Amino acid sequence: MRTSIATVSLSGSLTEKLTAASRAGFDGVEIFENDLLASPLTPEEIRARCADLGLTVDLYQPMRDIEAVPPDEFTRNLRRARHKFELMGRLGADTVLVCSSVSPLAVDDDALAAEQLSELAGLAQDFGIRVAYEALAWGRHVSTYDHAWHIVETAGHPALGTCLDSFHILSRVSGPKDLEGIEAIPGEKIFFLQLADAPLLAMDVLQWSRHYRCFPGQGGFDVAGLLGHVLRTGYDGPLSLEIFNDVFRQAEAGPTAVDARRSLLVLQEAVGAVAPPAPVVPTGVAFAELVTPDADPLSTLLRALGFARTARHRSKPVDLWQQGAAGVLVNTGTAVRRDGTRLAAIGLESPDPAAAARRAEALLAPVLPRRRAPEDALLDAVAAPDGTELFFCATNRPRLPDWRADFEDVEHPAAASDVSGIDHLALTQPWHHFDEAALFHRSVLGLKAQESVDVADPYGLLRSRAVTTPDGSVRIALSVGAAPTDDTVHAQHIALATDDVVTAARRFLTAGGRLLPIPVNYYDDLAARYEFADGELETYRELGILYDRDAHGTFRHCYTHTVGRVFFELVQRDGGYRGYGAPNAPVRLAAQHAVRRLTGG
Amino acid sequence: MRTSIATVSLSGSLTEKLTAASRAGFDGVEIFENDLLASPLTPEEIRARCADLGLTVDLYQPMRDIEAVPPDEFTRNLRRARHKFELMGRLGADTVLVCSSVSPLAVDDDALAAEQLSELAGLAQDFGIRVAYEALAWGRHVSTYDHAWHIVETAGHPALGTCLDSFHILSRVSGPKDLEGIEAIPGEKIFFLQLADAPLLAMDVLQWSRHYRCFPGQGGFDVAGLLGHVLRTGYDGPLSLEIFNDVFRQAEAGPTAVDARRSLLVLQEAVGAVAPPAPVVPTGVAFAELVTPDADPLSTLLRALGFARTARHRSKPVDLWQQGAAGVLVNTGTAVRRDGTRLAAIGLESPDPAAAARRAEALLAPVLPRRRAPEDALLDAVAAPDGTELFFCATNRPRLPDWRADFEDVEHPAAASDVSGIDHLALTQPWHHFDEAALFHRSVLGLKAQESVDVADPYGLLRSRAVTTPDGSVRIALSVGAAPTDDTVHAQHIALATDDVVTAARRFLTAGGRLLPIPVNYYDDLAARYEFADGELETYRELGILYDRDAHGTFRHCYTHTVGRVFFELVQRDGGYRGYGAPNAPVRLAAQHAVRRLTGG
Repeated sequence: MRTSIATVSLSGSLTEKLTAASRAGFDGVEIFENDLLASPLTPEEIRARCADLGLTVDLYQPMRDIEAVPPDEFTRNLRRARHKFELMGRLGADTVLVCSSVSPLAVDDDALAAEQLSELAGLAQDFGIRVAYEALAWGRHVSTYDHAWHIVETAGHPALGTCLDSFHILSRVSGPKDLEGIEAIPGEKIFFLQLADAPLLAMDVLQWSRHYRCFPGQGGFDVAGLLGHVLRTGYDGPLSLEIFNDVFRQAEAGPTAVDARRSLLVLQEAVGAVAPPAPVVPTGVAFAELVTPDADPLSTLLRALGFARTARHRSKPVDLWQQGAAGVLVNTGTAVRRDGTRLAAIGLESPDPAAAARRAEALLAPVLPRRRAPEDALLDAVAAPDGTELFFCATNRPRLPDWRADFEDVEHPAAASDVSGIDHLALTQPWHHFDEAALFHRSVLGLKAQESVDVADPYGLLRSRAVTTPDGSVRIALSVGAAPTDDTVHAQHIALATDDVVTAARRFLTAGGRLLPIPVNYYDDLAARYEFADGELETYRELGILYDRDAHGTFRHCYTHTVGRVFFELVQRDGGYRGYGAPNAPVRLAAQHAVRRLTGG
Repeated sequence: MRTSIATVSLSGSLTEKLTAASRAGFDGVEIFENDLLASPLTPEEIRARCADLGLTVDLYQPMRDIEAVPPDEFTRNLRRARHKFELMGRLGADTVLVCSSVSPLAVDDDALAAEQLSELAGLAQDFGIRVAYEALAWGRHVSTYDHAWHIVETAGHPALGTCLDSFHILSRVSGPKDLEGIEAIPGEKIFFLQLADAPLLAMDVLQWSRHYRCFPGQGGFDVAGLLGHVLRTGYDGPLSLEIFNDVFRQAEAGPTAVDARRSLLVLQEAVGAVAPPAPVVPTGVAFAELVTPDADPLSTLLRALGFARTARHRSKPVDLWQQGAAGVLVNTGTAVRRDGTRLAAIGLESPDPAAAARRAEALLAPVLPRRRAPEDALLDAVAAPDGTELFFCATNRPRLPDWRADFEDVEHPAAASDVSGIDHLALTQPWHHFDEAALFHRSVLGLKAQESVDVADPYGLLRSRAVTTPDGSVRIALSVGAAPTDDTVHAQHIALATDDVVTAARRFLTAGGRLLPIPVNYYDDLAARYEFADGELETYRELGILYDRDAHGTFRHCYTHTVGRVFFELVQRDGGYRGYGAPNAPVRLAAQHAVRRLTGG
């Protein structure tokens, strides 16, 4: 099954767009008229460039407001079409898209539309070109796929077929039944298939389409269901992404094109058209790796949290700290000094590390070298879209390389027993790739994505979305700042699970740790909202513990101070509480801003 | 009439918000619960801070989902309310907002709603507090102002009144008749008035309200009309701005607060409640002032465009270049060197410069010193939101200080006669203040704003909006980049009017100027779209002239190369064409990016 992408989906000059599409592995492109008009390359040069890059020109998009118009207007349209057909010959494009008219001149007359489209198709045929007629969701008289097909069928011209666009169809249908009519169209009369997803927004459909489209799997449409219908018609043309998205317009074309290709691979897998290695869902977090130019502040913090330094890497300046099932690596390797202290890697406990890595590679994740040094164990690892390294690990399992084998035990005092493991990891995402990150973690790792939530920071809205295993053994909270410039102000954090946050917090303070101070007003509000046992609320206030409740259970949590971009959270999750304390996030963020103002950090 | 602003309308910590509101001249604030919860200040400290800043606490917003609920739920609500009323006593707030319930527990029972609100009001009264009940546009059972008033009237409790919110009302009404019911409410039962505007978007009303509200005059609602109705009831409480806006959340609080106050002043003027000096509409552009560290590149460019250096400032390193009615100042003063070459000031020909400045000052525009040096003429000037200095000038008029008096004629060759004047000025705005800029130019200068248009740049969407005098003698095109980081990549430009762009372009090229190269593909497309006289299109292609047409006339234009952030456009506007060549902007922007890539600039 061939894959294609419309040049409007990527940012930059036409040359940059073509290069990005080719590198990401697309077979073809739809060329948007504006991209061609703005290019210094002639059509012949664009054709040659595409050929060099292994791309076919699958579609050209210059035609609007063609059909069901008065005769003199139609004569002008044919004149324009002849120009465009000549151009397409030079460009090597054999299919032209005609969207249903939005012109106030258009009349509601299917017979006239069919007659004029037939005449247009006749002209196209002389140039070896096919006309694909598509219903825009906001077309003046033709706005549904079955209406467009009815006109095509009436016209009965061999060079006239229909183009189906998942956005225009799915933004209009009220249920799956409305899609069944697709299978009544003969596959050979579907000349083109454009695929786009979109978040489910109740808004003007034109604005929705022009600004909010996204790649399949990143929105709320059942694009796979639609694709299934189309494939059952016998359609064998390309799957082409046509995405109008304000964010993609600003993002670098290269990563966007990879994100795009991955979305099509996942879609094709969903309909059984490709079969990459099956997902290997991780079963836990083996470790979180922090890199830092200076181990001391982190060591002090980890020690106060009750961690013990249990082992040291055999060949690299990496310490392993452990408490319960929680493992934290502190890496002072020189290569990473420039970025300050940050969360650089996650070790995911995997039932089959090699198979997990094969799936990731099949879904276009950059594969990292398996062995970092001659004496290291073999480890399968890939990079997530935000650059975080994901290691697929086996801990202490027969016949699998053990990441612990690279570490040598060191003498150490006993760790505390407050922390039982890692509850979740919170990662700030680069601004332009939030939706990509969620799709990556879902498709590559087999995690489930929860709903996206807005969180008010004093200096802008954040969006946050968690991806988890069904049993909660791996939870990653992805967040993104309000604007492209904001990603540095939001820290990453490691949330440590405890059965008793009060005891853990007290131990931490006694050991010299500092917890984020929470305003007294917050506790007055808790007192208004909930009833607590005697003294309970006073304890939370004294320590700076935050509280939330959902239909399933309760969540108590507190935050350490920040080192570099990283801080820790102590989390007591009871009774099946499913969230991450999002209602408390504005208070936490404001408190962190206040600390930063005080310390000038 | 007192003015107030909700803390949610401004960014930052509560302290930053209060300071900004006070500096901008607001009389009071609505305190949002989340701002209080996140503040390290106690309610008493917040009260004292407000008093020090001359602000009253006009409203507190803690109450949701209070009314028309089952008895046990209502008991919990009263418990919560008691806590909040105690808090309000400490805060010094005497009015609490209660929004109509969105809870799934709420029942559709006006009598129950009235009974429970009455009981709540009784409790409030014990604390000296008034309850203002407001219909949310998406309230579960109560979503219109008249319905909320009906419940308040039924309850008949002295401590219960209604709160009117222009967004909730105007987002629901279908015509002006629906507003007339406001006047049936006794003014003393309107306990509060919240004002917000919004662009006219067809979208989910809750999302619309939470993300897209803007200050009155910056959206599409008739807020003044609504205010007129409310004032006719005898309402004498504050006019309070309650704006949820994603952009304001990121912008600096200080300028946003000034923008907010200006919007209220303009609104009050519209209903006759305040009377600042009347607008003095400018009658032309006397000059555009460029500052540059190096006059040579600009001098070369101006000379090639046919300008002559006609005069020099008596005391400063400023040259005056003229052609026809177009004047360009080139300022090499050292104070401005760091910014590179940019458009720093505009001289607006004004029938009454002093009155124009008085209006600007009344509308909170920063007034610049009238005399820059002891020997300079008195000049009235203010700063626009983007920092551009606006001089209100008189050229050669009796009894008014003449800006030309500061200049001494120099020997010069005759200027060409290709350029007749300045057609328009194009100014890139700081990302967070685009809507402010349009309101500023409309209200301070008395210009009219045209519709906002989206323009596709290869690296993101731009928005552009023109403000003009009715006769077109002053036209300023405001534009804003796609993201906060983008404002530096978009240049400012001066569009010069010519009667014959072909002759002007040829002269410019002969004189050694360089025009922006426009791709050949653009002209192939023009050929498809329009019919031209023999040779006409070839001439445009040869020179790089762009072409557009609207219902009124035609537009032919071409662009010089860029010096610093500034370039020139030659513009031939015929037959009453009203636009700015927006359909050609993507081609122009792509060509400028291509030049920048080539030159590394």
